[in-house]
Amino acid sequence: MMGNNEIHEFHIKNILRKLDENDLDAMLVANFNNIYYLSGYLSTSFAFLIIKENPIIFVSGMDMENASNTSSIDIVKYESFDKMIEYLKEEEIKTLAIESDLTANVYEKFKDFNLKISDVISTERMIKTDDEIEKIFKAADIAHKSLLELDVRTKQEKGVEEWECAYELGYLMRKNGASIESFDTIFASGPVSSLPHSTPRHHVLDTPVLVDYGCKFEGYCSDTTRTFIYNEKQEEISDIVLEAHDKAIKAVEAGVKASQVDKVARDIISEYGYGDNFIHSTGHSFGLDIHENPSLSMRDDTVLENNMFVTVEPGIYLEGEFGIRIEDMVLVDKKGKVVGNLPQIL
Amino acid sequence: MMGNNEIHEFHIKNILRKLDENDLDAMLVANFNNIYYLSGYLSTSFAFLIIKENPIIFVSGMDMENASNTSSIDIVKYESFDKMIEYLKEEEIKTLAIESDLTANVYEKFKDFNLKISDVISTERMIKTDDEIEKIFKAADIAHKSLLELDVRTKQEKGVEEWECAYELGYLMRKNGASIESFDTIFASGPVSSLPHSTPRHHVLDTPVLVDYGCKFEGYCSDTTRTFIYNEKQEEISDIVLEAHDKAIKAVEAGVKASQVDKVARDIISEYGYGDNFIHSTGHSFGLDIHENPSLSMRDDTVLENNMFVTVEPGIYLEGEFGIRIEDMVLVDKKGKVVGNLPQIL
Repeated sequence: MMGNNEIHEFHIKNILRKLDENDLDAMLVANFNNIYYLSGYLSTSFAFLIIKENPIIFVSGMDMENASNTSSIDIVKYESFDKMIEYLKEEEIKTLAIESDLTANVYEKFKDFNLKISDVISTERMIKTDDEIEKIFKAADIAHKSLLELDVRTKQEKGVEEWECAYELGYLMRKNGASIESFDTIFASGPVSSLPHSTPRHHVLDTPVLVDYGCKFEGYCSDTTRTFIYNEKQEEISDIVLEAHDKAIKAVEAGVKASQVDKVARDIISEYGYGDNFIHSTGHSFGLDIHENPSLSMRDDTVLENNMFVTVEPGIYLEGEFGIRIEDMVLVDKKGKVVGNLPQIL
Repeated sequence: MMGNNEIHEFHIKNILRKLDENDLDAMLVANFNNIYYLSGYLSTSFAFLIIKENPIIFVSGMDMENASNTSSIDIVKYESFDKMIEYLKEEEIKTLAIESDLTANVYEKFKDFNLKISDVISTERMIKTDDEIEKIFKAADIAHKSLLELDVRTKQEKGVEEWECAYELGYLMRKNGASIESFDTIFASGPVSSLPHSTPRHHVLDTPVLVDYGCKFEGYCSDTTRTFIYNEKQEEISDIVLEAHDKAIKAVEAGVKASQVDKVARDIISEYGYGDNFIHSTGHSFGLDIHENPSLSMRDDTVLENNMFVTVEPGIYLEGEFGIRIEDMVLVDKKGKVVGNLPQIL
């Protein structure tokens, strides 16, 4: 297995080659996770990485100590945009790649250069290394173990509130080795389970109980959803979602288009007459970020490749009644491999 | 006191007037907190508000239920950027204001319009209404009460780990009525207290213990730092930081420049010979976001006005040894008014 510095060099070499193929002289990188991915330094304020033959990171003064301890790329103290622009001009950089999420104020500062949005880094990040795969499996293990420890059915019987369940789940994940949640835990019960992104309330658990949650292990995210069902109507809907979930997972395979997996799930739910109640895409990739490319949506024709991860998370949402979603992470393999072994129905 | 809809209308009217003064036909708003501020709808996926005579929000399909329940502005389902652009052209919009944090991919989609970065919304947000002031005081009360309940000195004696203290503080804040932390809690002890943005570790509390934390109450943030000191060297540094803190707070007053408050704190710390160890600005405004304009930095000449909030948070960081920071929130009044009454030395 490669060491960290070798991994960083490997990725930068790939990116440099792609920039060169597209006649781009350098790339300006401001996204914290992109900089972390390429250098090992995770900024908490702001930082700008310039990818070129000898890459360099401009770092905020207050982060110099942390950056020099963790970055495998040379760092220099950020002073001003003017100084950075001067530096780029001295390096004879004319065509500059940028990330799609660069902010407008920075974009306009660099308008003297020929700016071109490039997805080279997000594309590089799509294919996970062995080390990344291991971390994601570990994050999933921690998350799954923690949900079982929480014991949602007992919480529901005892009348515990949504926010307290969400919070205790976060505690268990940290106790079991995670650093933090990978996104704000969704603990939605009763009618609010029909809101895909409901915020945990000061309200005792109603039914069903939808839990969408994950944690980070060494920077890498997990993402799982389970819906605890309590009656026949909920079970009927859950069965449909589970069928869509299982068949979509079977469709995940190297060489298949992302949109094709979405179609498998969507067609099943539509056949049962709930097409209009499946109000989001079937899934998304993840890694350092909880949402990465590709997305399993009808509009994304990215061809799945080995060592990508995707979530498969169909759902049916009955406004004012309830919602059911079942989500698993899948590693794209010859055949899609579900991450972990948490039962879908708990 | 105005109702929510009236407050939204009031802000939109002010913004429309300023857009008009700057010959801007409309504004494209993508920042979630800006949309919330102007409509009451808090997006969790994506949304675009168009501010014009009859404002409208384009909302993701999966958020339609939530948006229609909470927004005081008309909503319409987002379909594609092309449809939005078509709509703007039908409305005869040519010059379009945008936010400074609009992402490059959206920026480029709207390039047919004459785009101009505008700070009208962040400027409007600087001056808090009575309702906002009340919420910030409430968030501060919850946070301060929770820190006292946590009892850091006892935790340190018992050898509790940083992450567990940070987590329990989050629990107490929620129990006391907050919705969530306003940013990731910093619980940094021993040498890592010299890193202004240290992440809580699986490591028992060393000394000193620096706690930088806050919570949200109905969307509004608090932000406080206390450093628990344990020996003479720490006390000596703490005394200097406290002097800078107190005198800077005295300097907070309507009519004074933000940079002037920074200068007061920086001059005191420099006089004691620690100028190079004060590695960040003296403070920042806050509200729905934890960092808002103005910033109390040497480069920000914004004139403070009544009903702005700023943090005052000088610090001295001795690399490899320890760091001390003391932070309070101040409401700009005739004389700056410290929010809450949590003792600076605990």
